[in-house]
Amino acid sequence: MGEFDLIARYFTRPVRRADLGVGDDCALLAPAPGMQLAVSSDMLVEGRHFFADVDPAALGHKALAVNLSDLAACGARPLAFTLALALPRVDEPWLQGFAQGLFDLADAHRCELVGGDTTAGPLNICVTIFGEVPTGQALLRSGARAGDDIWVSGTPGEARLALDALRGQLTLPAATLARLRARLERPTPRVALGSALRGLATSAIDLSDGLLGDLGHILKASHVGATIEAHAAIDLLASSDQQESAAGNFDENILMQCALAGGDDYELAFTAAPALRQAVQAAADGCGTRVTRIGSITPGPGLRLQGRAGQALPGRFASFDHFA
Amino acid sequence: MGEFDLIARYFTRPVRRADLGVGDDCALLAPAPGMQLAVSSDMLVEGRHFFADVDPAALGHKALAVNLSDLAACGARPLAFTLALALPRVDEPWLQGFAQGLFDLADAHRCELVGGDTTAGPLNICVTIFGEVPTGQALLRSGARAGDDIWVSGTPGEARLALDALRGQLTLPAATLARLRARLERPTPRVALGSALRGLATSAIDLSDGLLGDLGHILKASHVGATIEAHAAIDLLASSDQQESAAGNFDENILMQCALAGGDDYELAFTAAPALRQAVQAAADGCGTRVTRIGSITPGPGLRLQGRAGQALPGRFASFDHFA
Repeated sequence: MGEFDLIARYFTRPVRRADLGVGDDCALLAPAPGMQLAVSSDMLVEGRHFFADVDPAALGHKALAVNLSDLAACGARPLAFTLALALPRVDEPWLQGFAQGLFDLADAHRCELVGGDTTAGPLNICVTIFGEVPTGQALLRSGARAGDDIWVSGTPGEARLALDALRGQLTLPAATLARLRARLERPTPRVALGSALRGLATSAIDLSDGLLGDLGHILKASHVGATIEAHAAIDLLASSDQQESAAGNFDENILMQCALAGGDDYELAFTAAPALRQAVQAAADGCGTRVTRIGSITPGPGLRLQGRAGQALPGRFASFDHFA
Repeated sequence: MGEFDLIARYFTRPVRRADLGVGDDCALLAPAPGMQLAVSSDMLVEGRHFFADVDPAALGHKALAVNLSDLAACGARPLAFTLALALPRVDEPWLQGFAQGLFDLADAHRCELVGGDTTAGPLNICVTIFGEVPTGQALLRSGARAGDDIWVSGTPGEARLALDALRGQLTLPAATLARLRARLERPTPRVALGSALRGLATSAIDLSDGLLGDLGHILKASHVGATIEAHAAIDLLASSDQQESAAGNFDENILMQCALAGGDDYELAFTAAPALRQAVQAAADGCGTRVTRIGSITPGPGLRLQGRAGQALPGRFASFDHFA
């Protein structure tokens, strides 16, 4: 099977939302009047972002999910994406699975594949995504203000617990591992929550490299600091599954490491004025997504960790850096 | 040097045309009213699209050039691009050179880097580019009509001659090799020509995989056939440099192979009504780009090669396919 057959068989579908989709030199998109186009790219590399033996459908899901998560963090509504794919060889069952996982998630968000590139090479997946957001309403990293609450969606740290278990660094019951592995391999981009937070949140970011590291980008861009109630994040992870009490057996240090510095969760961290607590909660309830307050923005720079009794914690937690 | 320092040092500049550039979860773009956004992605892989020892500045140039060429083939004006980069290691002189080549070409086209991704991995460069084109005026592959002239810009085959020489499959005088190597490694995207052809050309494509193969995409999308005057393309290549008579010494078969099936030229092939010959020529002259008629569109399907005396040539020329 040649390159064009491959594209035609696995990656070409009738155009629905774009003006022109797969098959010409460019795709053509037209954002609605009064809308800005939100654009983000993420590249996934074998051995770094996923294991070589990962389920191809999960990989297709994740390649799009991490990009949808960037749109979510801007409060943008998904519109379309391009896919550039370097493949060591044409493996039809693999392509079938990958395309299935990709399009299942794409369809769930009405996000359309409009073009891309296919080449031979070490397995590499680069998705560039496009979303719409009303002009001036995007959630940026730069809007956090002193006194704002700091919120997270879901349960940061689950993906890292799964990763550590898959690496053999800790042991999880089979059912727990299966559930947490799904969090790692098939993350849920918080697209509805991101849109619902427009006009409420003052800043937002998605959690890819770890809570403290990603939150640090908000602090830097907003020229503020933060106090994080470490136990709020730890308790969230410790109680992440009441049936299994999945994480109940772990050392609090492991939980803290995973909750505060574990990457790959694709949850949202965001800030909002305390006066809007009920509105934020209602917005999250409307999306069926749990949100939890874990700290507050301070005027001075720096990030302080607070323990259960209000004491300062010394912790330094490295977030993920591809070249550090 | 970590990931964010790397981005800050080599790939972050003040935003000029986008609403929001590098540094948030998404970039924000707003096409002007009445414009469509033209989008294209190209991925370059070491060992496949470039030699490992290629000049990094040339590589930075080419990574953007091949994407600008897609905009050119749609008649779109460059606006912005994202860059996703997988690097085996942080090599500062290499990054410096790459960024220089990239931004020199970007600045020449007022095309702005607005985001992307950086990761460790086998060297892979994925650029996604955005351009503007007035709604309904994009040059598509599907508009060729029977009787149209077929034109090419520049001299298709030069890049392939250089590639064959670099591979040791043929010998070129040093000066000729240097000139043709620049065609291969620093191709000139025909952006001004593409825009000038709006309203004149009925279809267009850029030449990445070889003239006949790429032209085949126009024929398929337009449901037409073509007659190509093979000698027109060969003579163009044979006389590509009058001082050196670079290609004058080659077997006509080699010239034919390079001119008709050599890839990587990033010239435009396009069709236009014969009544517009003077207008097409004037448009090309206005851009300082040579264009040459090499055949015509026929109503029946299929691509026929015609020799110097009008006779049918049997040639079959494989165009480049990453998986064939």
